[in-house]
Amino acid sequence: LLKLRLEVSSLSSAYSTKIKGGNYALGLQLPSQTVARAMSSLGGATPPYTTLAISRPTESITHVELHRPEKRNAMNSAFWSEMVTCFNELSEDAQCRVVVVSGAGKLFTAGIDLMDMMNSVLQPEGDDTARISWGIKKKIKKLQETFSVIEKCPKPVVVAIHGACVGAGVDMITACDIRLCTQDAWFQVKEVDIGLAADVGTLQRLPKVIGSQSLVNELALTARKMYADEAKSSGLVSRVFADKEAMMAGALEIAGEIAGRSPVAVQGTKINLIYARNHSVADGLDYIATWNMSMLQTEDLMKSAQAALEKKSPKTKTYSKL
Amino acid sequence: LLKLRLEVSSLSSAYSTKIKGGNYALGLQLPSQTVARAMSSLGGATPPYTTLAISRPTESITHVELHRPEKRNAMNSAFWSEMVTCFNELSEDAQCRVVVVSGAGKLFTAGIDLMDMMNSVLQPEGDDTARISWGIKKKIKKLQETFSVIEKCPKPVVVAIHGACVGAGVDMITACDIRLCTQDAWFQVKEVDIGLAADVGTLQRLPKVIGSQSLVNELALTARKMYADEAKSSGLVSRVFADKEAMMAGALEIAGEIAGRSPVAVQGTKINLIYARNHSVADGLDYIATWNMSMLQTEDLMKSAQAALEKKSPKTKTYSKL
Amino acid sequence: LLKLRLEVSSLSSAYSTKIKGGNYALGLQLPSQTVARAMSSLGGATPPYTTLAISRPTESITHVELHRPEKRNAMNSAFWSEMVTCFNELSEDAQCRVVVVSGAGKLFTAGIDLMDMMNSVLQPEGDDTARISWGIKKKIKKLQETFSVIEKCPKPVVVAIHGACVGAGVDMITACDIRLCTQDAWFQVKEVDIGLAADVGTLQRLPKVIGSQSLVNELALTARKMYADEAKSSGLVSRVFADKEAMMAGALEIAGEIAGRSPVAVQGTKINLIYARNHSVADGLDYIATWNMSMLQTEDLMKSAQAALEKKSPKTKTYSKL
Amino acid sequence: LLKLRLEVSSLSSAYSTKIKGGNYALGLQLPSQTVARAMSSLGGATPPYTTLAISRPTESITHVELHRPEKRNAMNSAFWSEMVTCFNELSEDAQCRVVVVSGAGKLFTAGIDLMDMMNSVLQPEGDDTARISWGIKKKIKKLQETFSVIEKCPKPVVVAIHGACVGAGVDMITACDIRLCTQDAWFQVKEVDIGLAADVGTLQRLPKVIGSQSLVNELALTARKMYADEAKSSGLVSRVFADKEAMMAGALEIAGEIAGRSPVAVQGTKINLIYARNHSVADGLDYIATWNMSMLQTEDLMKSAQAALEKKSPKTKTYSKL
Amino acid sequence: LLKLRLEVSSLSSAYSTKIKGGNYALGLQLPSQTVARAMSSLGGATPPYTTLAISRPTESITHVELHRPEKRNAMNSAFWSEMVTCFNELSEDAQCRVVVVSGAGKLFTAGIDLMDMMNSVLQPEGDDTARISWGIKKKIKKLQETFSVIEKCPKPVVVAIHGACVGAGVDMITACDIRLCTQDAWFQVKEVDIGLAADVGTLQRLPKVIGSQSLVNELALTARKMYADEAKSSGLVSRVFADKEAMMAGALEIAGEIAGRSPVAVQGTKINLIYARNHSVADGLDYIATWNMSMLQTEDLMKSAQAALEKKSPKTKTYSKL
Amino acid sequence: LLKLRLEVSSLSSAYSTKIKGGNYALGLQLPSQTVARAMSSLGGATPPYTTLAISRPTESITHVELHRPEKRNAMNSAFWSEMVTCFNELSEDAQCRVVVVSGAGKLFTAGIDLMDMMNSVLQPEGDDTARISWGIKKKIKKLQETFSVIEKCPKPVVVAIHGACVGAGVDMITACDIRLCTQDAWFQVKEVDIGLAADVGTLQRLPKVIGSQSLVNELALTARKMYADEAKSSGLVSRVFADKEAMMAGALEIAGEIAGRSPVAVQGTKINLIYARNHSVADGLDYIATWNMSMLQTEDLMKSAQAALEKKSPKTKTYSKL
Repeated sequence: LLKLRLEVSSLSSAYSTKIKGGNYALGLQLPSQTVARAMSSLGGATPPYTTLAISRPTESITHVELHRPEKRNAMNSAFWSEMVTCFNELSEDAQCRVVVVSGAGKLFTAGIDLMDMMNSVLQPEGDDTARISWGIKKKIKKLQETFSVIEKCPKPVVVAIHGACVGAGVDMITACDIRLCTQDAWFQVKEVDIGLAADVGTLQRLPKVIGSQSLVNELALTARKMYADEAKSSGLVSRVFADKEAMMAGALEIAGEIAGRSPVAVQGTKINLIYARNHSVADGLDYIATWNMSMLQTEDLMKSAQAALEKKSPKTKTYSKL
Repeated sequence: LLKLRLEVSSLSSAYSTKIKGGNYALGLQLPSQTVARAMSSLGGATPPYTTLAISRPTESITHVELHRPEKRNAMNSAFWSEMVTCFNELSEDAQCRVVVVSGAGKLFTAGIDLMDMMNSVLQPEGDDTARISWGIKKKIKKLQETFSVIEKCPKPVVVAIHGACVGAGVDMITACDIRLCTQDAWFQVKEVDIGLAADVGTLQRLPKVIGSQSLVNELALTARKMYADEAKSSGLVSRVFADKEAMMAGALEIAGEIAGRSPVAVQGTKINLIYARNHSVADGLDYIATWNMSMLQTEDLMKSAQAALEKKSPKTKTYSKL
Repeated sequence: LLKLRLEVSSLSSAYSTKIKGGNYALGLQLPSQTVARAMSSLGGATPPYTTLAISRPTESITHVELHRPEKRNAMNSAFWSEMVTCFNELSEDAQCRVVVVSGAGKLFTAGIDLMDMMNSVLQPEGDDTARISWGIKKKIKKLQETFSVIEKCPKPVVVAIHGACVGAGVDMITACDIRLCTQDAWFQVKEVDIGLAADVGTLQRLPKVIGSQSLVNELALTARKMYADEAKSSGLVSRVFADKEAMMAGALEIAGEIAGRSPVAVQGTKINLIYARNHSVADGLDYIATWNMSMLQTEDLMKSAQAALEKKSPKTKTYSKL
Repeated sequence: LLKLRLEVSSLSSAYSTKIKGGNYALGLQLPSQTVARAMSSLGGATPPYTTLAISRPTESITHVELHRPEKRNAMNSAFWSEMVTCFNELSEDAQCRVVVVSGAGKLFTAGIDLMDMMNSVLQPEGDDTARISWGIKKKIKKLQETFSVIEKCPKPVVVAIHGACVGAGVDMITACDIRLCTQDAWFQVKEVDIGLAADVGTLQRLPKVIGSQSLVNELALTARKMYADEAKSSGLVSRVFADKEAMMAGALEIAGEIAGRSPVAVQGTKINLIYARNHSVADGLDYIATWNMSMLQTEDLMKSAQAALEKKSPKTKTYSKL
Repeated sequence: LLKLRLEVSSLSSAYSTKIKGGNYALGLQLPSQTVARAMSSLGGATPPYTTLAISRPTESITHVELHRPEKRNAMNSAFWSEMVTCFNELSEDAQCRVVVVSGAGKLFTAGIDLMDMMNSVLQPEGDDTARISWGIKKKIKKLQETFSVIEKCPKPVVVAIHGACVGAGVDMITACDIRLCTQDAWFQVKEVDIGLAADVGTLQRLPKVIGSQSLVNELALTARKMYADEAKSSGLVSRVFADKEAMMAGALEIAGEIAGRSPVAVQGTKINLIYARNHSVADGLDYIATWNMSMLQTEDLMKSAQAALEKKSPKTKTYSKL
Repeated sequence: LLKLRLEVSSLSSAYSTKIKGGNYALGLQLPSQTVARAMSSLGGATPPYTTLAISRPTESITHVELHRPEKRNAMNSAFWSEMVTCFNELSEDAQCRVVVVSGAGKLFTAGIDLMDMMNSVLQPEGDDTARISWGIKKKIKKLQETFSVIEKCPKPVVVAIHGACVGAGVDMITACDIRLCTQDAWFQVKEVDIGLAADVGTLQRLPKVIGSQSLVNELALTARKMYADEAKSSGLVSRVFADKEAMMAGALEIAGEIAGRSPVAVQGTKINLIYARNHSVADGLDYIATWNMSMLQTEDLMKSAQAALEKKSPKTKTYSKL
């Protein structure tokens, strides 16, 4: 495997050259100037992160930007652990009510940074096949956790995809709650091309995210690209936008709709939707009845009802942190 | 909470004013005059019901109409218990082979009647938080049962939606088997706007009813309206009709197709489809093999086969009650 | 039941006459002449099979053709056991990496051969109702296995449907991995017309294959035909082709894409996709982590990575048999 | 089957004669005179019940006595529906905190009253085998519900068995929470002797109640009697008493221990124990965390803690109704 | 691994020498002379089997004897496939109603025949770690099937263990229904001593067979021997006999009790007990209600009831084959 | 609740005074002097821990001692987080192959340190009932994790209980693998006495640990003490020792048996036993087959086999770290 390490040293960049370029507007035109500025990531990644740029377009929306544009946002070992730190913090951060995820630069993400991974995470360790295998499983579990934190975070996560979303990028977006893309976006379940069955989420979540099992199988078995229109008609994304600027505005609009509503209602909804996916209807009904025996005692119910009474949007009310 | 009760006293009507009007033909043009008359609900709700009008367009089709048109068919406490009585009776009524559900007046339903609910079901009772919570769970369970009876009823339920289907209305239609709508229909998972996670079925059933999880999440988290076209393309409804008249004719046609076939085949199909949704494929296959070890011994198999032999529709045969 | 046997003796053919004819090109125009010849089934079924014609368009693709064209590929008792033998052999055959299934003659399949079944498999045996029932269950289990072998076979199965796919034909294709059809194809969940709940897979698998539960219910409860366009938009098939010739070329192309990739990656992908369908996301993630602790140690990973490094398709490499 | 009905007309009594007699003290010596009197059922069944005698040994303990002593408490159709009424009422009755079940007369119960059942519930109805089967399933479901209400009742149910517990009696006691018996008690899974697989709970619950699967299988397949000692060592009962008098005193003592504690704690414990039995540990932990997010806000926690502080039993405090 | 093969060549015998000897009566004293003769296996294995001796002590009881006494009934490759053939045949053989399994010679079984396995089944095959792993999984699945056939066979299986039951022997007996042993029997979950986690059933079934998880863990993690008394008190066996002769008589008596009862009742009981073990109580109740909708229509119910009426054992009646 | 905080300030000590004293030998007599010294915790807790004393009686056995003897090892907030740190480290520590857990001082543990908890973890936070509830759930989840780490740690955990094991102590020991106790030990599911349903593991794990559901219910509903003999006969513990000294020697002996065996075999066994508890037998068999496709390729298999060949214990071989 030493040999492998050397040979793949320039793989990552080579491998990404196939990704089709695009001319995106440099200045991101957001709902308001302030917001736009808040989301700009001209200064690069946000320390201590090296692969993520974090900003707050509004008080209650956090924008997490994959930020290694010169490497096409390829996921290196730093990324794998920074995602966990980042989303665990967002889970605890009562100020944050919605998360928007997007990618800096020309495309969303080229997927895993093969070169980096080969030199670190995927190094075989152990005295025999069993011990090497044991180590591999531990590493896979860790990578899986990188995306599962998105699902465990009770705040809804809106992901906005432009350009390309390849390999582990697909694993990642299936763990998000709402998927948007630009007209020029494409998606590729790339793992079969690298000689492995995708093991950080795509095979587990994509069939529960898309309505057509035939399409899921075709994508996963042939690694063919799927473009925006098919992504929309198949249900992978719920909206397609003309370009990145429009999409980011759209993502912020959706995020704003969510952020302005009762966090008790919003986060309870996310948690119960994920619960329902993994259980029978009877179990799901019992769970939410147990859940709501306390949650219905929120003052938000009163506030929201008042807004309705006054023919106003629920967003006109202020809801306590959760 | 006393304060809340007072303040919301005019909420229900206020809240419904946002629902877009519509000009529906007054006279419902049904396949035949007789049928049309059978389905008319000019006389109001069918005693002892106060919120439902029950009719029999044909001997084997029962039409259940939500019938509080002056209140936009908002669901009050009477409705919650009448539905249970009604569907339990239909389950036992061997004459009835299919149920068609629709709404009287300008729209399908404005959802829960908040004012009524606040004054009755949602009143907090109990000496401490735990006891209040206990009571809330019991009430939620009761509301859930209102729609679960639709699923437990072995006769297929076709629901025809026009105008608007809001909040608990969505919970209700996801428990039906076949969904149809008019071109002017819209759907809204409203609960998040009232400050709660939907707890009578939407979060549990919608993800198993629609192919796009991204869309489900968007609808449930933002409470945005979904119109007929998206309802069709997303798979929420299987057909869209120009207007209510056409839809009711279509609903009756589908119902007639089902009612004319062997009830052993039809009801066994419904029961096994619901079973399959909640279990693995292996469990589902074992269950239907156990089911059919008796059901294949029906004389309906012979009758149906004869119809096929004679190049006739299975509907030309008469099948015993079940 | 003796009477039944006699009366249905000409049922099967009668029953099929309703199937709409079609003019398919006699000579199948395949990617290359060699391949075309390899797939021709002029000589009839491949002994010892009497209902299947087996060929090898390429070294690693096996073509299984339903081959009783004069009977519209109706499934008789021979077929039920030949499928099991055939797919069990393909499972063990390391040369075979993908399977393409199609039907000879005017249409894909008219479904079960009622006459044949009545005279053999469906004969009641046993001294009382319980014993007859016991025997029926054993027979159903055997029929279910006929299609479950397709799912248990770790090699992906691409099914290409033209003309008509009726009754048990639908049960069969839902157990395949990728579904393609011609523009003139139609599908019919026929069982309810024969007086029974479909018990060899449709009710269990169709809801997990198609995104719209309303459509699944409508198809299964009314036995209405679904044509190619709806099959595509609902996600039952992932591609529609102008005619059979184009479809077979397309099927071979997809099969070729799959066959050229690492069998470790491909078959691991199929197995994990099916596992994920029947389990929670958490269980699915744990399973593939356990799976890949050995499978990531394949030399295919290196070979595939090298291909990527050289900007070549993974198909340019040769992967050992599995 | 008409013939069957006639022949079994004297079966029930005949069938019970095999049950070994016993000399029980006529006067039930309970902890206190008052209690004893409260539990006496000299006056026969408690109207409107005809098979149950209901009493209140203390304010918060309800005693449900199977009361057809002249028929060895055999379960007739009246019993099947009275149990449902009774336990549904106890579920709603906030005064009642624990239920004690026992049998009047010489033994606990001889099981199902075959003669009565043959003449009513088990009469075949329907035009063909499928329809008869359909009716049978509905009846079984109803019988199952008779015992499932015990499990659904959130108040713990202590069952005290003396003499004999046969057939449906075993189905019944496996749905109770705590099982006690006298030294002369015996148990018999009788169904296999009547030609059927036990279908109202024994086969489903006994393996989750007893630690030895080999013993469960032996009992269910051979219908052999199990005596008190084996019932204790196998874990079917948690205590054995010298005679009925001692057992009733013991049952009341246990019931008293439970009734005196916080109903929030007690009923939450029962509900979560049953939930845990049917789910994985991970699911169970998540469920109780959701449960307790409201239930820990009970004032009972404070009261109980105070009792502990004062070195008193939690029973010295008064807890609100639930 | 070649080296390994050579070194273990005498392992199997060496490994068994630790097994404590015993003096069993040569002539097996069975209930009657005829039976005894029927069960004697002086002639060795029953062709075509080489490791099993099959006999019929009575018309409806089949005795399957592990028969490689000179090798301590160690399980070689022949055994693994003969078991499958044998139990598949017994499943189909309507004459056979119960199976008794025991071991010829000094002890029940020394477990897997390591030498034989090393030379055949466990040989690594494949070009890389992934392919070797793939082959290993296929072999494990095959071995698992060897014991799962016991569970899939609807006829109850009584296993009688004397002397020693080691390694794969424990995997085997946990798949049987009723376990008996002699006073001198001991059990050993041996796999951890050979460097592997037991993979043919012990770890999966033992925790559902024995009540104490602490004991299961201790046995599986330390490979310590468990003797007859602990096997009885822990519930692994339901009865202990003084010696093999007494045990075989006891096994036949139990088998006779079962064989004389209605096969509809008996086999339905086995199938539903196994179903219940793997499902929730609610699922189990629904399954048996579906099962019994046909099975209650057996004439055996009438025959059994008549026997009860006449105060006779159900064994006095004759029940049709199943 | 402020009031509550003040009042319970002396609760913890008061509450523990009921625990029966005992005269344990001061000097712990372990197998060897070295070991004994290694396990002594005279120096108090092991920094940075304040509630745990960690030692290494042998190279591969880690001894974790609950070490707040002056507080009867009551679990305070420090404990809850130290357990997680400690077991996460042990999971990663390849040197450690088995863990022994015991308690310093007069008894194992008095359970939760109520006073400490009241002042920290259980403080209500949040603006309304829903937000307080949300916070409570997060805290419960954290507490649950404290014991779940024991289960997630792949190294077997032997727990040795003396004196008393109360409340959260029972939650804790049910997450361990092997339970031992002294003759004077007693166990108490205390939570119901404090007014809550036990929510950190007892209700979820105890029913899967003990064979008698009736006993589990009795213990959890009445909070009665269970003494060593019943703990043994019910299967809660697998061995009872005369005193703590003998028990610690026994625990070390068992730990030594495990530590000396192949860690591939041992840890694979633990992981699969826990998997099997939460899944059906079919799922469990499939999982271990997937697990062992790599694990059987360990060199430990060869080493262990050689030991067997040489008639030596597997402990005579050296196995690589895992």
